[in-house]
Amino acid sequence: MSKQNFVEQIADIEQDFPQWYTDVVIKTGLVDYGPVKGTMIIRPYGYAIWENIQSQLDKRFKATGHKNAYFPLLIPMSFFTKEAEHVEGFAPEVAVVTHAGGEELAEPLAIRPTSETIFGSMYSKWIQSYRDLPVLINQWANVMRWEKTTRPFLRTSEFLWQEGHTAHATEEEALEETMKMLGVYKEFAENCLAIPVITGRKTEKEKFAGAVATFGMEAMMKDGKSLQAGTTHYLGQNFAKAFEIKYLDKDGVQKHVYTSSWGVSTRLIGALIMAHGDARGLVLPPVVAPEQVVIVPIAAKKAGVTEKCEEVKAQLEKAGVRVILDGSDNSPGWKFNEWEMKGVPLRIELGPRDIEEGKALIFRRDTLEKQAYSLENLAAEVTALLDTVQKDMLEAARKRRDGRIVYAESLEGILSGVEGGNFVKAGWCGCRECEDKVKVTAAATARVYAEGETAEKCAVCGKSSKHVIIFARAY
Amino acid sequence: MSKQNFVEQIADIEQDFPQWYTDVVIKTGLVDYGPVKGTMIIRPYGYAIWENIQSQLDKRFKATGHKNAYFPLLIPMSFFTKEAEHVEGFAPEVAVVTHAGGEELAEPLAIRPTSETIFGSMYSKWIQSYRDLPVLINQWANVMRWEKTTRPFLRTSEFLWQEGHTAHATEEEALEETMKMLGVYKEFAENCLAIPVITGRKTEKEKFAGAVATFGMEAMMKDGKSLQAGTTHYLGQNFAKAFEIKYLDKDGVQKHVYTSSWGVSTRLIGALIMAHGDARGLVLPPVVAPEQVVIVPIAAKKAGVTEKCEEVKAQLEKAGVRVILDGSDNSPGWKFNEWEMKGVPLRIELGPRDIEEGKALIFRRDTLEKQAYSLENLAAEVTALLDTVQKDMLEAARKRRDGRIVYAESLEGILSGVEGGNFVKAGWCGCRECEDKVKVTAAATARVYAEGETAEKCAVCGKSSKHVIIFARAY
Repeated sequence: MSKQNFVEQIADIEQDFPQWYTDVVIKTGLVDYGPVKGTMIIRPYGYAIWENIQSQLDKRFKATGHKNAYFPLLIPMSFFTKEAEHVEGFAPEVAVVTHAGGEELAEPLAIRPTSETIFGSMYSKWIQSYRDLPVLINQWANVMRWEKTTRPFLRTSEFLWQEGHTAHATEEEALEETMKMLGVYKEFAENCLAIPVITGRKTEKEKFAGAVATFGMEAMMKDGKSLQAGTTHYLGQNFAKAFEIKYLDKDGVQKHVYTSSWGVSTRLIGALIMAHGDARGLVLPPVVAPEQVVIVPIAAKKAGVTEKCEEVKAQLEKAGVRVILDGSDNSPGWKFNEWEMKGVPLRIELGPRDIEEGKALIFRRDTLEKQAYSLENLAAEVTALLDTVQKDMLEAARKRRDGRIVYAESLEGILSGVEGGNFVKAGWCGCRECEDKVKVTAAATARVYAEGETAEKCAVCGKSSKHVIIFARAY
Repeated sequence: MSKQNFVEQIADIEQDFPQWYTDVVIKTGLVDYGPVKGTMIIRPYGYAIWENIQSQLDKRFKATGHKNAYFPLLIPMSFFTKEAEHVEGFAPEVAVVTHAGGEELAEPLAIRPTSETIFGSMYSKWIQSYRDLPVLINQWANVMRWEKTTRPFLRTSEFLWQEGHTAHATEEEALEETMKMLGVYKEFAENCLAIPVITGRKTEKEKFAGAVATFGMEAMMKDGKSLQAGTTHYLGQNFAKAFEIKYLDKDGVQKHVYTSSWGVSTRLIGALIMAHGDARGLVLPPVVAPEQVVIVPIAAKKAGVTEKCEEVKAQLEKAGVRVILDGSDNSPGWKFNEWEMKGVPLRIELGPRDIEEGKALIFRRDTLEKQAYSLENLAAEVTALLDTVQKDMLEAARKRRDGRIVYAESLEGILSGVEGGNFVKAGWCGCRECEDKVKVTAAATARVYAEGETAEKCAVCGKSSKHVIIFARAY
């Protein structure tokens, strides 16, 4: 297959971004559609990204004192009704088990859409005294939310995620936890995914069902739309009261705890694709790329070429680099295209002439630049280059995003801003009516409060306002 | 709390093994009962064991060429009916989703009890040519089998496991895979869990629903009963034909593939508890213990004691040892009991006198022996000792088991053998009737064929027989 044909398998990113996305996720083998509508199979190439995301996040969670556990998939339906806002938010999306073991169940069971209620029910049993606090537990699990319109990674009926659930003696501690984990997410998104994010509080309309306050991190995709890449929730005593999670304090008084929850999901893979991808396909940051380097032999049948490629591979592996050697029968050009589409950060090309001259060509997927490097000390060069790619990808994404943040002082300004593929900062009076008007007129939503910024008036109604909201169209 | 009282929290292992098990799993914080009957919460101490099991197995799976993926939780009920034996085996245990998103579903969906069918449906799409083979995929997931009688880790409606599903061009390759993974399981069980296992083929009655042949590994618990700790299945072309998994071979002919599947689950934690536990509680092998060493300061308030403990902790951490320092207000005696119950392999006791003499006392949980070690080079001593404990635990378990394998030449012999807490080797003619008689008379089942052993006659009916079966009561 010629280079031309190969690249044409993916829709034009400039002309049809949604089709480009679908082509990329399917044709790079990240994912496939499951037999049940709205479900996906995360294929090995996609799952390897998730494993890297997991290992990076998991060590951060543990370093901040959290432990993993596993709670049941099935939750009694009655649990949801205990927190009024929570049931209102989640009941319409729940999948329900009514029969099991050949019999109808006495009480229908929900497949967890999120686990605040079942954690709450156990915390009420485990927490007795101030000595038991804080409780800092995370779980890696599958959850289910029945959605009408689905897209791989972005919105599927089942997805994988982690959900942290913590209980604290005081409001201050619970809020501190909520903000700490938001910070962990931001540092991870920027340093591991190379995605710059804007963190901030969500409006009442956009907050989690049952939370006192929700904080989100928003990432700009290449089409200028926003993707909510993670959220942390300060739950106050809402779930503590619904599930009677109480402790005996030092002063001998029974008190309700304060709780938080926070989560990120396989959506992050969708964010990776749309924040960095280009006309050729995926562009993966080295920290989470399944393979960081692909070695492509040139004139592989010439004496010594395969041996040298194997030698370089062994050196890189020894240096801790995830490396693959493509020894297939395909032509070098075909291999270039395939691994570029799959987003491997670096490609090493090694042919007889290179070997003779003691050098290798290295192609950078992010910048599309090719440069010769000495074969001596190649592992150290590659390791350093992977670091450079990681940092450069973040900076490139930051520049792209920062060039697409505009200010608006009217509803029309918000509309033209988001139509131009921007995040739009605008004053907002705080009322639901104005927020809804933006939705209706501009098909945009309030992503987060712009922290530390103030406005004079609401861009929608003109009333005086001190809040600045970031409006955007969103996934 | 005195030592006496503390230990009395656990039922006597000699008098009431089932109650001892229940006490241990609950009181050491491994697990708790979920709100839905038959479900469990794997608490942080239990889940940490599972994480260690996962990381050990996962690297073995990857080293043998497997990749991880994630397949959907929900399977159309119609998939099960495609393989006749499979549906017969699993339909009675399935939990069924009938409603989702506020509506009744057109087709009810099963929560996976195992995933052969959904893997099969995707493999039929992905596999086209001999070039696509073999396909070697594993997934870590939750599964659900609605059971009447449940016990934490051993039998719960939901459990965590891994399931490998592979497809091959030939029968030989698929069989080789089936046996290779049985070998991986055995090596893991012995070297990581310190549990000696007997591997072998299962009888027709005991095989997996839909398999041509099932191979199991059987471990002896301290009460002499057997626990099936893992199985691998050679599926022949059963699922390939049910799901039309075909490939175009080199000779231009369309052929069905041959498949295998294999799995181990959180049951392994139950095996760990019952293979090694004693009157004081858990005894965990170092490789999978959440904490390998606990440091208990003696007279912690005396000058220099806490500092020295911290220093030793830092040294051990640097050497890669999982270590905890119990700096709580509890008495040393209380701490000894608690960490012994929790099965931490080594305890380091450090008091003012020890520090003065430049030594530390180390207590081995497996042998209950205490010995003094020089503080100089302690990290190296501890690392070596952890290796010794790991090996000694395997050998001790092997000796216990080998002393409890007996031969029988009659049904009465089988009965008295299993009643005495033994594995019983006996000749078997191969007929289902004799196998059922053993079940009815001795409450024992055929665990596996004893490989390489031959008999002259069936212990039940007396007919000539060349097979030797290991009969045992089992979990």
